Amino acid sequence: MNTANPTAHAFDQAMHLQPLGDDRFSGHTSEAYANMVGPFGGATAAVLLNAVLQHPQRIGEPVSLTVNFAAALQPGPFEIEARPLRSNRSTQHWLLLQYQNSELVSSGTAFTAIRRPSWSEQELACPAVAPADSLPALDARGMLRWISQYDLRFVCGGFDPHSQQPLDNSLTRLWVRDEPPRPLDFLSLAAIGDCFFPRIFTRRQRFVPAGTVSLTHHFHVDSERLAQVGSAHLLGQAQANRGHNNYMDQSAHFWAADGELLLSSSQTVYFKE
Amino acid sequence: MNTANPTAHAFDQAMHLQPLGDDRFSGHTSEAYANMVGPFGGATAAVLLNAVLQHPQRIGEPVSLTVNFAAALQPGPFEIEARPLRSNRSTQHWLLLQYQNSELVSSGTAFTAIRRPSWSEQELACPAVAPADSLPALDARGMLRWISQYDLRFVCGGFDPHSQQPLDNSLTRLWVRDEPPRPLDFLSLAAIGDCFFPRIFTRRQRFVPAGTVSLTHHFHVDSERLAQVGSAHLLGQAQANRGHNNYMDQSAHFWAADGELLLSSSQTVYFKE
Repeated sequence: MNTANPTAHAFDQAMHLQPLGDDRFSGHTSEAYANMVGPFGGATAAVLLNAVLQHPQRIGEPVSLTVNFAAALQPGPFEIEARPLRSNRSTQHWLLLQYQNSELVSSGTAFTAIRRPSWSEQELACPAVAPADSLPALDARGMLRWISQYDLRFVCGGFDPHSQQPLDNSLTRLWVRDEPPRPLDFLSLAAIGDCFFPRIFTRRQRFVPAGTVSLTHHFHVDSERLAQVGSAHLLGQAQANRGHNNYMDQSAHFWAADGELLLSSSQTVYFKE
Repeated sequence: MNTANPTAHAFDQAMHLQPLGDDRFSGHTSEAYANMVGPFGGATAAVLLNAVLQHPQRIGEPVSLTVNFAAALQPGPFEIEARPLRSNRSTQHWLLLQYQNSELVSSGTAFTAIRRPSWSEQELACPAVAPADSLPALDARGMLRWISQYDLRFVCGGFDPHSQQPLDNSLTRLWVRDEPPRPLDFLSLAAIGDCFFPRIFTRRQRFVPAGTVSLTHHFHVDSERLAQVGSAHLLGQAQANRGHNNYMDQSAHFWAADGELLLSSSQTVYFKE
């Protein structure tokens, strides 16, 4: 853990972008966030969002983000185009395109806005679960590299491919934070929002070919509130609604430890089973 | 009702696109689907999807669709660019841009795929509710034009701005079909997926400035299954997870009357209250 120099965190290194002008940025895949094929999707979603955050014409903060994973990135450099499509005084719509060797590897859209105080209500209560410090952290040794960048503490719906005992459903609840700890911001939340293993793994308790094809985040709070959360664990919950003919959706939500909903997310995941 | 000539349906007229070549299509707003400002968002989402469906290079059928509403369309012609960003043998990623008078009015992405039989499971059960024919259809006289294009039968979470009695939550369940009836397809399902009034209306039981800014659909079935549903009512359910500082999310699901989940959807909605 290096709190004195937060840019030394592997996540910040993975997020690093060099502005090239004309809405273009160059970045480089991070070995620390390597997945089965290409980087962890959460890291890709986050680095696309970072191009928006780094853009000199940005207005406001992220409210929604959609990222589509079109092809596996190879280890190495990539380029992101983040183009403001339409802006007014307080809102902005963005197009996101990521290329590697001139081929499109991911696409997306984002919406940023200046939010103002309003009537406010949270309908989706945080589930009552055992606190993070009462649960063991997942031992990520021997697992894919990106998993060891997180401290994951499963409340239910863990994954043990040796059990050969399918679960009754795909519901997972877990506590999660960056490992080593890092203060929460839009980038780390965008990545954490994709931290669940494919729901088919959880339901079936075995590996099958699977991968997210489209991910959408709805952010509920601003950067000030995220900074207050700091490096504490978030409670995450994910469940499939339906898997059918190679595609399964997932609804996910993340709360701060005090019960405040920070992120609602959904995704479509390819699977072969 | 005109079942003999389905293209005479107002929805099909609203969906009409003229191919211009080079991934471009021209269309025209439909008075029948007029909303407060510009067209009903569901009609816009559907006509963007239609540009994908009409595209000569399309592979497979829609699996996911995101549409961002950047500016109100004026009554009149518009142009859509539907560009295949990356394709392989069985999947395809799309970029969608809609322009009016050369200004961007909406953007989006879509993912289409050839789906093959696989392990299949539905986790989100259809709520047990009174059948459609036991409930009265909403009397849409005096309401916005688009509402009268649907037969809406509220099970719970209706909207009565004269009641001045807020509800305890934003949950709505309703039966819905096109009015007059029209056989279900990807286009009508994409539009129906946006048929809920803003959750803030339901929760507060009054009008406030509100509008969808980003909408994401995850389709669970293919066109063959949608055709089997025909013109029967679908059961829709929508609820907000959280509204805070001008933006509220909504999770929505639609089932066929036999309980099969057809669509999972989420959106971010602007509101001022």
